[in-house]
Amino acid sequence: MDSNNYIFTLEIAVRDYEIDSEGIVNNAIYLHYLEMTRHEFCSWAGYSFKQMSADGVVPVLSRVEIDYKTPLASGDVMLSCLWVEKRGVRFVFHQDIYNKLTGDMAVSAVVTVVSLENGKLSRGEKLYNAFEKWL
Amino acid sequence: MDSNNYIFTLEIAVRDYEIDSEGIVNNAIYLHYLEMTRHEFCSWAGYSFKQMSADGVVPVLSRVEIDYKTPLASGDVMLSCLWVEKRGVRFVFHQDIYNKLTGDMAVSAVVTVVSLENGKLSRGEKLYNAFEKWL
Amino acid sequence: MDSNNYIFTLEIAVRDYEIDSEGIVNNAIYLHYLEMTRHEFCSWAGYSFKQMSADGVVPVLSRVEIDYKTPLASGDVMLSCLWVEKRGVRFVFHQDIYNKLTGDMAVSAVVTVVSLENGKLSRGEKLYNAFEKWL
Amino acid sequence: MDSNNYIFTLEIAVRDYEIDSEGIVNNAIYLHYLEMTRHEFCSWAGYSFKQMSADGVVPVLSRVEIDYKTPLASGDVMLSCLWVEKRGVRFVFHQDIYNKLTGDMAVSAVVTVVSLENGKLSRGEKLYNAFEKWL
Repeated sequence: MDSNNYIFTLEIAVRDYEIDSEGIVNNAIYLHYLEMTRHEFCSWAGYSFKQMSADGVVPVLSRVEIDYKTPLASGDVMLSCLWVEKRGVRFVFHQDIYNKLTGDMAVSAVVTVVSLENGKLSRGEKLYNAFEKWL
Repeated sequence: MDSNNYIFTLEIAVRDYEIDSEGIVNNAIYLHYLEMTRHEFCSWAGYSFKQMSADGVVPVLSRVEIDYKTPLASGDVMLSCLWVEKRGVRFVFHQDIYNKLTGDMAVSAVVTVVSLENGKLSRGEKLYNAFEKWL
Repeated sequence: MDSNNYIFTLEIAVRDYEIDSEGIVNNAIYLHYLEMTRHEFCSWAGYSFKQMSADGVVPVLSRVEIDYKTPLASGDVMLSCLWVEKRGVRFVFHQDIYNKLTGDMAVSAVVTVVSLENGKLSRGEKLYNAFEKWL
Repeated sequence: MDSNNYIFTLEIAVRDYEIDSEGIVNNAIYLHYLEMTRHEFCSWAGYSFKQMSADGVVPVLSRVEIDYKTPLASGDVMLSCLWVEKRGVRFVFHQDIYNKLTGDMAVSAVVTVVSLENGKLSRGEKLYNAFEKWL
């Protein structure tokens, strides 16, 4: 965890039912962890998904790139970290998950989100205004 | 499968990601199978969840009793069978799942559903009218 | 939460991806919460699933009865409580989940577990010895 | 679906419990669909995961890139298509999912898999031999 760019970290414990027949966390579950982390970040930063929804703002996932490094297993606790930047109309979340105990990187992901406002692709002004100081 | 009470059967294949670290289908997944079967039954019987929703009818699960008999595993195909009866305001689904290949019972469940209409507990008339001939 | 029989309580936060198209926690997810709570209880009580596995002890779910009372939704935090008794070869977990904020009961469940030892149904001695003081 | 490179297509129906609170298939679920499709392809091509496991071969996901195009919703049926190439020690699956009814692309993904043999990163010979004619 030598990057000091992260602006938000969430601690998440692996739940046993997330383990698949290989004895490790199933690959799809990491997208849940990443999503949870973005949601918690938004709440923490002052603009929750609930509030977005009330404002007619719908963040939509447009792309995920995820590298699987070291699998997490039963009993593991992770640190899920992110930083975010705006590129044109897109918000790009840089999200890394580490095994808390060993410090090993579990996954490294780049997640691109766009924002619908009232059902149309927006330039992301509302999200930009809310998250400006974090970008 | 000696019961000849069943009025509907759905064939479902186990998906590998439904297998947990014990090498068998996770216990919670069977509730998904049961739900799927009820939804497919309703569509097949002519009153889909989509249509219910359009009519302001919301079936709400009130109780599940499920006995786990023989676990399903990777590669298995199941036959998910049901019959239904009305008891007062409640619809009681009797749902059994069998391993298609071996004929072994995987789970046996009794699922109780009530019906909200426009946000209030109803006497289930709309569902009753739709499903009368199956009750 | 007027019962004072509970011997273990776990606080769990609803994760947004556990919400279904009705806007509430999907019914199957509660079985995950209940399972998590039993696993955490076993670890806390000194006999983790990992240790059981090393000892050739496999707890097997044989029956779940669950009543759905008040749905949990996005942002909710729950208190998942249990007490346990031994009935013959079976361990019966009495598990209730409450909305932490409102105190409303979300679900009430009775979960029956038996114990395989070295692949055979056992009389549950090892589990009994481990959990005797909680029974 | 103008690409004619695909060597395998699997039809999959959306299950209602895969729908999230936005009313569409949750983003993580697509990784399940993609995984299912690769597993079915391997079985169809003559080298199932079960057989791999018996041979000490463990395919490991190393990277997923996924573009989300048009969301799938309740009642939708998809066509999940793939072709695969070998690049050095890596197997690269090109996987696209289409809405069967509309023909719209739902997601487009590139999934990289490496092969462990007896616990070590291998050059993928066993998988290569099994899938040679499809590469």
